Amino acid sequence: MTGTLHGVGLGPGDPELMTLRAHRLISAAQVIAYPAPDSGESFARSIAAAVIPTDAEEIPIVIPMRIERFPAQDVYDAAAKTLAARLSAGVDVVVLCEGDPFFYGSFMYLFERLARDFPVEVTPGVTSLTACAAAIQRPLCARNEPLSILPGPLPDAELRARLSGGAAAAIMKVGRHLPRLRTLIEDLGLTNRASYVSHATLPNQAAIPLAQAPEAAPYFSMILIAGSDPYANG
Amino acid sequence: MTGTLHGVGLGPGDPELMTLRAHRLISAAQVIAYPAPDSGESFARSIAAAVIPTDAEEIPIVIPMRIERFPAQDVYDAAAKTLAARLSAGVDVVVLCEGDPFFYGSFMYLFERLARDFPVEVTPGVTSLTACAAAIQRPLCARNEPLSILPGPLPDAELRARLSGGAAAAIMKVGRHLPRLRTLIEDLGLTNRASYVSHATLPNQAAIPLAQAPEAAPYFSMILIAGSDPYANG
Repeated sequence: MTGTLHGVGLGPGDPELMTLRAHRLISAAQVIAYPAPDSGESFARSIAAAVIPTDAEEIPIVIPMRIERFPAQDVYDAAAKTLAARLSAGVDVVVLCEGDPFFYGSFMYLFERLARDFPVEVTPGVTSLTACAAAIQRPLCARNEPLSILPGPLPDAELRARLSGGAAAAIMKVGRHLPRLRTLIEDLGLTNRASYVSHATLPNQAAIPLAQAPEAAPYFSMILIAGSDPYANG
Repeated sequence: MTGTLHGVGLGPGDPELMTLRAHRLISAAQVIAYPAPDSGESFARSIAAAVIPTDAEEIPIVIPMRIERFPAQDVYDAAAKTLAARLSAGVDVVVLCEGDPFFYGSFMYLFERLARDFPVEVTPGVTSLTACAAAIQRPLCARNEPLSILPGPLPDAELRARLSGGAAAAIMKVGRHLPRLRTLIEDLGLTNRASYVSHATLPNQAAIPLAQAPEAAPYFSMILIAGSDPYANG
């Protein structure tokens, strides 16, 4: 009997936005893995910290800050090998995932390496997407409105094409792309519909009009653009 | 002191996918409102059933099955008036919301009627979007891949334009639109990348290739279309 690989979504940051299932799985875990920076605290671990059993084996998957290639294949190769050893010994492994494991998550790099050999269960989590909508107190999308989810690093031409239709949009992973994105949104005449959110659900949350956003944005920040009229026909 | 209106996301259906915060707010609630059909059980209430205090006042918001207008304005006008009376009396009101309150949710109809007069707090929930990705065991979107979220009732021309770029997509609210959507996806050559999910996370969940989907789909069903290569550069 092999163990099961659990990809467990933790939600956007507030530990109270963990699901009951995530809480149960983490509380009972013998082996817990999570992404971690090469210096400083793991954000995923910090969300779950109060729930991690003191006698659990913890396996940080250290992602170097300055990686030349994207993603860090050798890091995930090594981590998969470590986790495979536990799974082969019949022990379940819980992988802590910020947000949701399958929504722009790094869990997929472990999933693609291990899912052929071991049973995998994914526990979905609250995404930053809806956490940011709650933070600005505005519906993300309504009725039959399309919603475009766009990573900020996409080239200008692709962002422009996808934003120009006037539909609701969320731009993820804003970070160092903020000045470029701000210019592009202004060019499209969408600034008055755009909000900026960083650190959603955490004590240092910012949720403000894009026009008031700071010069420098953290990686986990988002721009939400309302559709032409969120209450149209409402 | 007026009460606070809480829009509380319950997740996609499995009660264990409720957040700890939703659990806390519902457990302590004196007044609980939820959408309900004119006959049969409220899906939102069924998710939270085990947590609702026996002495809480329950206010079903009955949405007639066959409504001529979209949405049912008079129903929400009347419900808002009922809830406003409790809030004015200083009592908090918890509104139970399937999935997430601001992700294609009917909570917005109460929000737009009450947010000017009363404090509102939104508790985000796990959406059907990521629950469906977990069900088919495939990442929804990866790295810098855009994701299009498209309601199934959109006209063919708009769906076609938004699907033809080859990006990852999720088509919500499939229901009676399934035959039309299936034809359109086949025309675009995307059938082999498309999955069908209904009743995600519930005991009767279906998560299968679109080609194997049944003739008739429930309203809460979804089609997920993988991007050109979910593991590109992976």
